[in-house]
Amino acid sequence: MKATVHVMLKNGVLDPQGEAIRASLGTLGFESALGVRQGKIIELDLADGTTEDEVTKMCEALLANTVIESYRIEMGA
Amino acid sequence: MKATVHVMLKNGVLDPQGEAIRASLGTLGFESALGVRQGKIIELDLADGTTEDEVTKMCEALLANTVIESYRIEMGA
Repeated sequence: MKATVHVMLKNGVLDPQGEAIRASLGTLGFESALGVRQGKIIELDLADGTTEDEVTKMCEALLANTVIESYRIEMGA
Repeated sequence: MKATVHVMLKNGVLDPQGEAIRASLGTLGFESALGVRQGKIIELDLADGTTEDEVTKMCEALLANTVIESYRIEMGA
């Protein structure tokens, strides 16, 4: 079975990577990019019967730095 | 207006980062994680009227390395 985890920086946390992308887009002439935030998608191939609770524990333990990042789990996606 | 770009490694391309995450999950006791692939989510804050075509050009120019990565655009997400 599959699960997808979306990890983004929490609002208010500075995103230097996103800012660098925005500046580069501007340099390339894409003035319409006003703001950019970058996060992670983690696609998990899981043993059958793995519960969302277990995936939550994976996020808390490793996949997300919960001090500055928030995460969203899609089971079976 | 907003757009979200999902960038993932193409199938068949080795994902050392995903493999490292899988190994770490195993070390932490999460044996149910059989495979892991990691990609990027890029949330764009765009000027009104920006077209999907323009976002596609941003992806081709900067946001994705189209040799090894594929991307998917969600406008207004």
